[in-house]
Amino acid sequence: MSAPLRHRMRVRYAECDPQGIVFNPRYLEYFDHAITELYRAALGSYDALAREHDVDLVVAEAGVRFRSSLRFDEEFDLQIAVASLGTTSIVTRIRVVNLDGSEAAEGELRHVVVTRDDGSRTPIPEAVRAALEPFCSSN
Amino acid sequence: MSAPLRHRMRVRYAECDPQGIVFNPRYLEYFDHAITELYRAALGSYDALAREHDVDLVVAEAGVRFRSSLRFDEEFDLQIAVASLGTTSIVTRIRVVNLDGSEAAEGELRHVVVTRDDGSRTPIPEAVRAALEPFCSSN
Amino acid sequence: MSAPLRHRMRVRYAECDPQGIVFNPRYLEYFDHAITELYRAALGSYDALAREHDVDLVVAEAGVRFRSSLRFDEEFDLQIAVASLGTTSIVTRIRVVNLDGSEAAEGELRHVVVTRDDGSRTPIPEAVRAALEPFCSSN
Amino acid sequence: MSAPLRHRMRVRYAECDPQGIVFNPRYLEYFDHAITELYRAALGSYDALAREHDVDLVVAEAGVRFRSSLRFDEEFDLQIAVASLGTTSIVTRIRVVNLDGSEAAEGELRHVVVTRDDGSRTPIPEAVRAALEPFCSSN
Repeated sequence: MSAPLRHRMRVRYAECDPQGIVFNPRYLEYFDHAITELYRAALGSYDALAREHDVDLVVAEAGVRFRSSLRFDEEFDLQIAVASLGTTSIVTRIRVVNLDGSEAAEGELRHVVVTRDDGSRTPIPEAVRAALEPFCSSN
Repeated sequence: MSAPLRHRMRVRYAECDPQGIVFNPRYLEYFDHAITELYRAALGSYDALAREHDVDLVVAEAGVRFRSSLRFDEEFDLQIAVASLGTTSIVTRIRVVNLDGSEAAEGELRHVVVTRDDGSRTPIPEAVRAALEPFCSSN
Repeated sequence: MSAPLRHRMRVRYAECDPQGIVFNPRYLEYFDHAITELYRAALGSYDALAREHDVDLVVAEAGVRFRSSLRFDEEFDLQIAVASLGTTSIVTRIRVVNLDGSEAAEGELRHVVVTRDDGSRTPIPEAVRAALEPFCSSN
Repeated sequence: MSAPLRHRMRVRYAECDPQGIVFNPRYLEYFDHAITELYRAALGSYDALAREHDVDLVVAEAGVRFRSSLRFDEEFDLQIAVASLGTTSIVTRIRVVNLDGSEAAEGELRHVVVTRDDGSRTPIPEAVRAALEPFCSSN
């Protein structure tokens, strides 16, 4: 599978733990950054969700499987695909891939769409849905 | 279900994001801290794993479901239970519970046990298994 | 010198770096937490600044001198003293002290007081000044 | 003054606090990253210090003055200059500069050079001193 969006990163010293590898919660920071880059690609910027579409995203569920370790100063790619677009929820799959193609980790975030007014669940705005469709995985 | 171990925490400002709530990757930092407290309760300290039993734990999988938000300076409890003790892997279930008993989040970490020498998978040492048994959830 | 306020902490694994010691930016997180505890002691909570006195604090300057290393799971005390109360600025001195009395680090934060309305500098409210006076260092 | 080294960054959501701006301890993470980039430019990589020159750097002192706020997704430059090369210590000055040229923050890190063997202070290796000289500020 070739993911619809790739974003190159490099491990910072601040992200590593006493085992000398990227500390596991940092992968959810990478996932969060993947979301920023996905909405930049789809909508111009993450902030467009709020500014133009009056919605926010709230994380409802996160999962990560760790395959191998990343070390200080190593480069890697985030491979990002929208796995499902429900009525009010979006599942994004993210792979953390070494430059040799092997997988360091993979997982998913499930977001629910809420109104900016009162934070209640609301359907994905049609313009957002259309903007995300090119980033949906085909399988 | 009453978890075998509880540990009181308070949200630090450093853990909150621009939405004014605990940033989702921070929950995996709380889970990591739950592991420290679990092994303190079971073995005297987390370091005893390496120092007395010549093993390390590596996180293989993490999952979190987010139920409600935690805000700056709120207190909460980590409720910690060993959900399964396999041959070489340990699943720990962790609940993040508000003081009124409602759940802020819950999830699990799956660790594999590795030797300190070469990082290869190794069975859970018998003394570690025995020390963890009082912290196993009954269901 | 005995500081007017002490707060016991314990190093979390998440705070340590590949050298096995607390990563230097984490000391500013400890300092930030010291501020939370100072205003809890003085005003009941940090949030009282905004809620009852209509002001916010903005960090203008930070300095840290590192004396020795802190390691995973070690306990330490934050020793906290207000070093100067200007018209619109507050300098807080913070020491990070090992349980044997030796110093791991020490430094200071200079905050300026701003209105919540427009973020412009404003004098320290009299009630806040009075509440901080018991925490001023005598020298 | 034009700094000898510049490195472009972009604020991540994970770096912002409930005030919606970069949390102050994160500037020391930016400074730490500036050090990584300085030694990449001077020696090929930060790791070359240990691998080729048998020394480590330990942070002895850090200072930051905050001038204005950085917000989520804003780009900025780190401007990096070696301010002094002592016998065993190195002072690096770092400016955090908005794309319009205004300063978000500036400060310095003082490192001491230690042997990898026993962590004792040792003179800056001549080859490291020579490699850093092109990055010294002229004033």
